[in-house]
Amino acid sequence: MSEAAVTLDGWYCLHDFRTVDWTTWKMAPSEERQAAIHEFMALVDKWNTTQSEKNGSHALYTIVGQKADFMMMILRPTMEELNEIENEFNKTKLAEFTIPAHSYVSVVELSNYLPAGEDPYQNPQILARLYPELPKAKHVCFYPMDKRRQGNDNWYMLPMEDRRNMMRSHGMIGRQYAGKVKQIITGSVGFDDYEWGVTLFSDDVLQFKKLVYEMRFDEVSARYGEFGSFFVGNILEEDKVEKFLHV
Amino acid sequence: MSEAAVTLDGWYCLHDFRTVDWTTWKMAPSEERQAAIHEFMALVDKWNTTQSEKNGSHALYTIVGQKADFMMMILRPTMEELNEIENEFNKTKLAEFTIPAHSYVSVVELSNYLPAGEDPYQNPQILARLYPELPKAKHVCFYPMDKRRQGNDNWYMLPMEDRRNMMRSHGMIGRQYAGKVKQIITGSVGFDDYEWGVTLFSDDVLQFKKLVYEMRFDEVSARYGEFGSFFVGNILEEDKVEKFLHV
Amino acid sequence: MSEAAVTLDGWYCLHDFRTVDWTTWKMAPSEERQAAIHEFMALVDKWNTTQSEKNGSHALYTIVGQKADFMMMILRPTMEELNEIENEFNKTKLAEFTIPAHSYVSVVELSNYLPAGEDPYQNPQILARLYPELPKAKHVCFYPMDKRRQGNDNWYMLPMEDRRNMMRSHGMIGRQYAGKVKQIITGSVGFDDYEWGVTLFSDDVLQFKKLVYEMRFDEVSARYGEFGSFFVGNILEEDKVEKFLHV
Amino acid sequence: MSEAAVTLDGWYCLHDFRTVDWTTWKMAPSEERQAAIHEFMALVDKWNTTQSEKNGSHALYTIVGQKADFMMMILRPTMEELNEIENEFNKTKLAEFTIPAHSYVSVVELSNYLPAGEDPYQNPQILARLYPELPKAKHVCFYPMDKRRQGNDNWYMLPMEDRRNMMRSHGMIGRQYAGKVKQIITGSVGFDDYEWGVTLFSDDVLQFKKLVYEMRFDEVSARYGEFGSFFVGNILEEDKVEKFLHV
Amino acid sequence: MSEAAVTLDGWYCLHDFRTVDWTTWKMAPSEERQAAIHEFMALVDKWNTTQSEKNGSHALYTIVGQKADFMMMILRPTMEELNEIENEFNKTKLAEFTIPAHSYVSVVELSNYLPAGEDPYQNPQILARLYPELPKAKHVCFYPMDKRRQGNDNWYMLPMEDRRNMMRSHGMIGRQYAGKVKQIITGSVGFDDYEWGVTLFSDDVLQFKKLVYEMRFDEVSARYGEFGSFFVGNILEEDKVEKFLHV
Repeated sequence: MSEAAVTLDGWYCLHDFRTVDWTTWKMAPSEERQAAIHEFMALVDKWNTTQSEKNGSHALYTIVGQKADFMMMILRPTMEELNEIENEFNKTKLAEFTIPAHSYVSVVELSNYLPAGEDPYQNPQILARLYPELPKAKHVCFYPMDKRRQGNDNWYMLPMEDRRNMMRSHGMIGRQYAGKVKQIITGSVGFDDYEWGVTLFSDDVLQFKKLVYEMRFDEVSARYGEFGSFFVGNILEEDKVEKFLHV
Repeated sequence: MSEAAVTLDGWYCLHDFRTVDWTTWKMAPSEERQAAIHEFMALVDKWNTTQSEKNGSHALYTIVGQKADFMMMILRPTMEELNEIENEFNKTKLAEFTIPAHSYVSVVELSNYLPAGEDPYQNPQILARLYPELPKAKHVCFYPMDKRRQGNDNWYMLPMEDRRNMMRSHGMIGRQYAGKVKQIITGSVGFDDYEWGVTLFSDDVLQFKKLVYEMRFDEVSARYGEFGSFFVGNILEEDKVEKFLHV
Repeated sequence: MSEAAVTLDGWYCLHDFRTVDWTTWKMAPSEERQAAIHEFMALVDKWNTTQSEKNGSHALYTIVGQKADFMMMILRPTMEELNEIENEFNKTKLAEFTIPAHSYVSVVELSNYLPAGEDPYQNPQILARLYPELPKAKHVCFYPMDKRRQGNDNWYMLPMEDRRNMMRSHGMIGRQYAGKVKQIITGSVGFDDYEWGVTLFSDDVLQFKKLVYEMRFDEVSARYGEFGSFFVGNILEEDKVEKFLHV
Repeated sequence: MSEAAVTLDGWYCLHDFRTVDWTTWKMAPSEERQAAIHEFMALVDKWNTTQSEKNGSHALYTIVGQKADFMMMILRPTMEELNEIENEFNKTKLAEFTIPAHSYVSVVELSNYLPAGEDPYQNPQILARLYPELPKAKHVCFYPMDKRRQGNDNWYMLPMEDRRNMMRSHGMIGRQYAGKVKQIITGSVGFDDYEWGVTLFSDDVLQFKKLVYEMRFDEVSARYGEFGSFFVGNILEEDKVEKFLHV
Repeated sequence: MSEAAVTLDGWYCLHDFRTVDWTTWKMAPSEERQAAIHEFMALVDKWNTTQSEKNGSHALYTIVGQKADFMMMILRPTMEELNEIENEFNKTKLAEFTIPAHSYVSVVELSNYLPAGEDPYQNPQILARLYPELPKAKHVCFYPMDKRRQGNDNWYMLPMEDRRNMMRSHGMIGRQYAGKVKQIITGSVGFDDYEWGVTLFSDDVLQFKKLVYEMRFDEVSARYGEFGSFFVGNILEEDKVEKFLHV
C-alpha cells in the first residue's frame, strides 16, 4: 500500500449553481419580485455578518452560458451550517424562480506534499488559507477533478516520493500566477463525485485559460488529471443583484 | 474459474433519496402541510415499532447539496417489505411534494474473506452485523462501488488468496477508524447497478473523507475500486422533521 | 473472421417498465381510478387468453426502488404484436397515470454453443424453452448485457472452440441453480442497445445475487461481461393489482 | 498520415423519432385530432409527390419499445430541405402532441473501398444507391456507429490496404443477406455525433439480428466497431396512420 | 514537463443553441408573437451596430435535427459582454418560447505551433483572425474537441517538436479547403468542458464532412482527437427570421 497523503482541512464548502426561470419570474407581479430580491439580500446580509465575524465566507457570481445563471459559494465551519443555508435559500421566494443546476460539497484542503515541520495549525499563513475570506475578483472558474487510476497511469499506486515531486513541480506553475490568480482547493473524497474541487479567482479571465492549459502539459495533469465540467463567471456585486434580476 | 467469495446476507436494504419540491410545498395550505407531516411521522412511528421489535431498522438524514434533500434508509427481512414501505411512502401526502432523486437496493452483507471456522449464523457478533440497528450518528455517507474488471486490473480473475490478502489489509485501515466510523456494507449484485453499497456513519463528518481517502491508496481501491456518486448528510432527528419542513 | 455462433430464436419479447405518477393518480376521482384498473385488468385477461392458447406469455412484477414501479414482460410470435400491445396499453386510462421508465426489445434465444445433432426445432424441450410460459415465481431480476470487445478482452475475436468451452463452464454454474432460479435469455442484437437481456425468476430473491455473483468469477463474465442496469422486483398477482394501486 | 477513403455522397438524410404524448392527445377533442391527422397526411402527400418526382424519398415506421413511437426517415437533395421539412412538421397540429425522441442527420454514402475504375457518378446502379427510393419493407432497424480509435484498435491508423481488405470481407457477409435485408449507409462525420448511420430494411425482422450478430464476429466490427442505440420498428402504412393514432 | 504551447487570444465567444417550444409559441396571440419577433430583431440590430463598429461579431443559424432549432454565435471583447447579451436575450419575450439546448463558452485562439518571429499582435492578418467578422456562409458546423490523454496516446506528454510537426501536417489538410471552408478555432480550457471549439463555415455543407473525415485519418485526429457533439445548420438571414418563426 502506498503512503497516503495527509491533509489539512478547513471550512466546509458548498458551490450552489442555479438557473433562473426567467419566464415565471417575468410573470410574477413587480412587488413580488421586489420582495423576493429583498428577502434574498437580507440573507446575503446575514452571510456578510458571518463573514465579518470570521465565521465563514461567501461569494456570488453570474455564470456564462447555459450551465447556470448564478453561483453561490459558501464556506462554513460545519456541514450542518451549509445544509441550513441551502435549506434557507430553498425556502425563499427567489428560490421559487430558480432551478437547481449543479452543486458541489467539499472542504477547504491543504495537502502535506510540502515539507514537514512545525504544527501547521499554529501557522497563521496556513490558517488564513484554511479559513479564507473569498476574494472579490472579477471572475471565477470552478471545476472538479480526480487523480487518474487507469492502467499504467495510476496516481494512487505511485510512491509518495514521486507524487511529492510531481506536486512540487505542479506548484511551481501555480506560483508563476501569484498575484494574477487565486486558487482555493477543496477536498471532496467521501463528500461528492470527484476527489477535489478547484475554484480560481482572477481579475483577468484569460488567466484561467493560461493557467489550466499550461498545467495540462505538466505530468500531474497530463497523465493523472481527470476533469469534470468547467464553470466560468463574473462577479455579481450585491448592488448589481437588482439589475441582474431586473425584467 | 476463480473461486467465488461466499457471503453472509442479512436484512434487505433500501436507500431512498428524495428532493422536496419547495415551491409546491409552500403553495399548500398550512393545514395540508401539517397533515402531511403528521402522516409521515405516523409512518416513522410504525418503523420505530418494527425497529424496537428487532424486525428491521431505519434512518433519516438530510442530504447536503442538490443531489437530494433527504434520505430514508430502510432495513427489512424481505424484499416485499421494502417494496411495501416504498409504496406506502409514495402514497402519502408528503410524497406529493417530493421528487424521487435516487435509490439503491441491496442486502446487508459480510464476506468470507475472513478465516473460516464455526457456523457464522450462530455467532451473535455476526448476527448483530447482519441485522443491525442503524446508529444515530450525526452524519451519513453513502456510495455504491464495483470491483474493477479492466485489462490487467481485473479483480474477478485474481486467485482467492490474493483477494483475501488485499481485503485483510483493507480491513486493517477500517479498523483504525473503529469508534469513529461505523460502516455497513450491503451487496447489490443482481439487485442494483453497482456490486456494493457502502454506508458510513460518524459523529465527525471529516472522518468520511479521511477514511475514504486513506483507503484509496490501498491496492484494493487504487487498482480495483470503481466508485459511483457520493451522498453526504446530517441526521434528521424525528423532532426536527417539522423544522426541516417548516416554510 | 471468427465463426459466428448460430442461435435458435423463439418468441419476441418486450420488457416494459413504468413509474406510477402517484400524485395525479390520487387526484383522479375514485370511479376514474376504478375504471382505469378494470380496463387494465381486461387487457390482462386478453393476455391470459393468448397465454392459455399458447400464443404468447406475460408476467407482471412490481419493481423495488425508484427505477420503476412495475414491469410488464410480454412474449409474442411477432414484433407487430408487441408493438400493438404496447400501443394498446399506452391508450388505456391507466397509462395516463404512468411514466415510461425503461423498456427492452429482444427475442427468446438459445445459442448453439451446445453440441450439434438433431434438428433442434423438432426437440420438444427446446421448443418449450423458445416458447416458454413465464413462471409465477415470487421474484424477478432483469439486466441487459454485452460481450466485451476491449483491448485483449475481445470475445468476438476468440476462436469458436474457446468460446464454447467458456460457455460450457458458464452453463455449469447455472445448472447448480436448477430448481432455484429459472433463466430466460433473450437476444437483442439489432433490436436494442445491449446484445442480450437476462431475466431470472426465483422464489428466493437472494438466489439472484448468489448466481450473478458466482458467475462474475467465471472468465466469461469476469473478462467478457459488460452489464447494464439491474431491475429487481416482486410478483404482482392479478388479484393484488387493485391493492397495489389503492390510494 | 493514412490515406483517407473517398466517398460518394447522395441525398441528405434526416431520421426523426417522435414519442406521442398520448395523455394530451386523448384530451384533445375528436375533431382536433381528426384535423391533426389530416394535416399530417397532407404533408405526407406532399412528400409522396416529391418522391414520385425522384426529388427525394421518405419512410414512416412505428418503433417498438419506449425509445419512440414513430420515425420519419426523409431523404432530400439539400440540407435546407431537410430543415424545412422538420420545421414544417414542428408547426403542425400533430407535433403539438409529440415529443422529440431522437434524430440523426447524415447523407447517403458509398465508400471507395471498392476497386477504382469509371466515373461512379455515371453508373446508373451507383446513382440508384445514392438517390434511393426507400423500400416498403415490413421492418426497419436504425443504429449509428463509429470506427474505433482506441489503443491498438485504431481504424484510422491502419493502412488503406488493410482497411480495404477488411471492408471487402465485411461486404461479403452483407451480400449473403441480399434479397433479405436492404441496407442504406449514411455518412454523418461533421453532421452528427457518430460517423455513420445504418438503416436496414427487411420483411423478416429476425434477419436484422442475424446480420448484425454475424457481422460482429468479423474483425471490422469485432475490433473496430462502436455502436450507438438501436431502434427497431414496423412499417406504418399511410392507411394505418389513423388506426395507429386512434384513441 | 512538456513545453506548453503559447496561444494568441482574441474575442470571447458564446455559442448559444435554443429549441423553440412550438406548442406554446402557437398558443400565443399573433400580436404577442409579432412583438416578440420585433424585440428580437431590435436586439440583432444592436449586435449589427456593434459589428459595424468592429467591437464584436455574431451569426444566426438554424440547426438541422432535434438538437436545437437555432444557434446564436456571439463574439465580444469581454466575458462580461457575453454574459450581458445572454441575459438580455433570456429576458426577451422570444426567450419565453425557447428552451436552452446547449451552449459553449470559449475565446478565439491561434496557437504558436507556427514558426516564431515578429510580434503577432502587430500583424494585421493575425488581428483579422483574432477579431474576425463572422462570414455569411450558407452553412455552419460546430463541435468541441479535446486532445487525448489516454495510455500511449497522450498528446500532452509529447515533445513540442512532435506536436508542432503533427499540427503542421494537420494544417496542410485544412489549407486544401481554403476558399471552401472557413474555420474558427476557439479555446475553452478553463471555460467549458472541452479544450477547443471548432466552428466551420461553408457554402457547400458537404465540405464539412469531407474536411472532418479527411482529417480523421491524420495522426493528430486519429490518435489524439476526442470529439463532442456535432451541430450542423443553415444560415438564418435576418429577413428570414419572421418566416422561420411563422406559425
